[in-house]
Amino acid sequence: MTELLNKIGQQAKAASQVLAQLSTTTKNQVLRAMADALLDKTPEILAANQEDLADTTGLADKFIDRLTLTADRLAGIADGVRKVADLPEPIGNVERGWTTESGLQISQKRVSLGVVGIIYEARPNVTVDSAALCFKSGNAVILRGGKEALQTNIKMAAVLRDVLAEFDLPQDAVQLITETSHELAQQFMRLNQYVDVLIPRGSSQLIQTVVQNATVPVIETGAGNCHIYVDETADLQMAEDIIVNAKTQRPSVCNATEKLLVNTAIAPDFLPRIARALADKHVEIRGDQQTCQILGDQAKPAQEADWDTEYNDYIIAIKVVNTLEAAIDHINQHNTKHSEAIITTNYEHSQQFTQQIDAACVYVNASTRFTDGFEFGFGAEIGISTQKLHARGPMGLKELTTTKYVILGQGQIRE
Amino acid sequence: MTELLNKIGQQAKAASQVLAQLSTTTKNQVLRAMADALLDKTPEILAANQEDLADTTGLADKFIDRLTLTADRLAGIADGVRKVADLPEPIGNVERGWTTESGLQISQKRVSLGVVGIIYEARPNVTVDSAALCFKSGNAVILRGGKEALQTNIKMAAVLRDVLAEFDLPQDAVQLITETSHELAQQFMRLNQYVDVLIPRGSSQLIQTVVQNATVPVIETGAGNCHIYVDETADLQMAEDIIVNAKTQRPSVCNATEKLLVNTAIAPDFLPRIARALADKHVEIRGDQQTCQILGDQAKPAQEADWDTEYNDYIIAIKVVNTLEAAIDHINQHNTKHSEAIITTNYEHSQQFTQQIDAACVYVNASTRFTDGFEFGFGAEIGISTQKLHARGPMGLKELTTTKYVILGQGQIRE
Repeated sequence: MTELLNKIGQQAKAASQVLAQLSTTTKNQVLRAMADALLDKTPEILAANQEDLADTTGLADKFIDRLTLTADRLAGIADGVRKVADLPEPIGNVERGWTTESGLQISQKRVSLGVVGIIYEARPNVTVDSAALCFKSGNAVILRGGKEALQTNIKMAAVLRDVLAEFDLPQDAVQLITETSHELAQQFMRLNQYVDVLIPRGSSQLIQTVVQNATVPVIETGAGNCHIYVDETADLQMAEDIIVNAKTQRPSVCNATEKLLVNTAIAPDFLPRIARALADKHVEIRGDQQTCQILGDQAKPAQEADWDTEYNDYIIAIKVVNTLEAAIDHINQHNTKHSEAIITTNYEHSQQFTQQIDAACVYVNASTRFTDGFEFGFGAEIGISTQKLHARGPMGLKELTTTKYVILGQGQIRE
Repeated sequence: MTELLNKIGQQAKAASQVLAQLSTTTKNQVLRAMADALLDKTPEILAANQEDLADTTGLADKFIDRLTLTADRLAGIADGVRKVADLPEPIGNVERGWTTESGLQISQKRVSLGVVGIIYEARPNVTVDSAALCFKSGNAVILRGGKEALQTNIKMAAVLRDVLAEFDLPQDAVQLITETSHELAQQFMRLNQYVDVLIPRGSSQLIQTVVQNATVPVIETGAGNCHIYVDETADLQMAEDIIVNAKTQRPSVCNATEKLLVNTAIAPDFLPRIARALADKHVEIRGDQQTCQILGDQAKPAQEADWDTEYNDYIIAIKVVNTLEAAIDHINQHNTKHSEAIITTNYEHSQQFTQQIDAACVYVNASTRFTDGFEFGFGAEIGISTQKLHARGPMGLKELTTTKYVILGQGQIRE
């Protein structure tokens, strides 16, 4: 097993050295050819997907839906690859440069990471999407997807690898691990010799497994226990609109709001109003003691665990707080460092909130749902980093790169 | 034990929230007071150091030297703290900002990391140096130094904490773990709830232990199996000067050169010449077959393991290569991604080398010894990152920070 992984790692490393030197023109031609090939091979890919769907015993409907490809969905995936081709080149920019006292000319250049590992579940779109973003950024990718999507992933990876071969490029720029045992996944997470970064994409359980077991540097993504705090000075109509949007526009995603904090001064007015609006959208409310007192049987009592739970569902927990400071303390204690918002008309409060909240994205008077690579204008998203190293918040192509210092001298030695 | 660490972690997190909001003026006042206090308390600190030095049975002379403080060395450490005060403020800069189609104003602001963990050996200067750099960058620090320096570290940390108290700042901005068991160190490496980043400083063995055991994100520093490649077009006098400097100016450090690759066209001329120059500095030469053929008994045969060994000593391994490509392949296969140099007068070769070598710092016609935060002009150095995430190459104050997105809206919701 180790031998298999070492071989995959060596192949990826060798391929990455070719990829790092490719011209923008070539990369974009290859990506567009990949998009065409995915469309051309639609029948074969859908047939492979049907094999994966042949036995779905015990899988939840939501899971099956994510696993299922249709011609339309595949066309959307191919279109995504074409859009990656249209993005600006992320490699080669000089970030900064200067000349030292000793006359050395130092340039910090943006370069590829090398080999990126992606560990994910049963969403076949992640296979193509990750391969396209890694290719554009000059990285070889090693994909380890869930076993439920194995046939689909094998077929899609083969289509992409065939295109690489047509262009006389190393096929191992895109490799799929087809042995889906947990033991192999564990070893993959420790393949430091060949893998420069691991990005887990999927449930918080998957992400935590990778964080706990990997020795390869990991970019932690996606867990989102997001809060909205409604200040006593808030425009209550704005607050209502934002909360309903942030909770219900797409509850299953990481930037959906999970918790509502309301200042005590407006709680008696605002809570019944927001409870009605959320009830119209079939959202279950779990409240702290004060919330339950005000809302009566419109709210269930929240348990201690609720404050740390990401529901990803039509559920919200509501807490009444006495001060802005109490709101900030609660958020900093329970959040996952993803996205937090204040609704306020008070300048000082907006300043204090944005300065003191510890999160990738801190909003004033807007929905947390905007934390997204596309909404931010990056044109792509490989995930949303909730850690502080390397990348924080939505990650686009730039976050799939690193830098290197190139130093030009004339014979300098150190005294 | 877990309870102790959780308490330390909570205290650090609480302190970090105060530190993140401090003004530049206050931070610099505190740092200058810390420098003064270290000088004032010189007798007490040296007495504590004598306790550590009381039993040095079994410790190497080099180790004892690093552990030993003198009044002069302590003055140098205090002076270092003063220099950190003089550095520009690393926090609060807006790295980029833009307005989205929906009218959201996005700013990416530079902020503190939060809590930084430093794991190191028996160099007492690391205690003060790390504390000063973390404080200046608004981070709480948790220090875990080697047991051999425990009394010195306890005393120095106490001096720094007293200064914090004088300024009514949380003393837990600087905490030292005084229980030096390996079990506790292991738990410290997994304290993800409170520690944002771990930086190991010391031997490659220490660093590998942290990389292999930590679940907290690690910045890998310092391992340096650095190469110099002498191209067939090189100015041989320049090559000689640079190699002697890079190997012998300070052989114990990570940016010293460990390996020499020489193009076959110049090997018969250059190898005897560089062998004489290195012999004058008492450097042992280990050569591949061709090198040994040319140098005779001036070289010992290199073993396979030599190519991957960082000697940190007066030893160099030399290999003859046929082409630039062979040199690049050898380096990319055996290097630790630290610092690599080519000596050449050929433009194309300089381009190919800097583009294809995978390392933090790639030099043309200069000594690898320049890879250093001070030589780069950063005014400080917390280490030299050899990984690709977050920071690569010399790390100054900026590398002890992260960013957060602040997003100002007017009620935007996502459609």
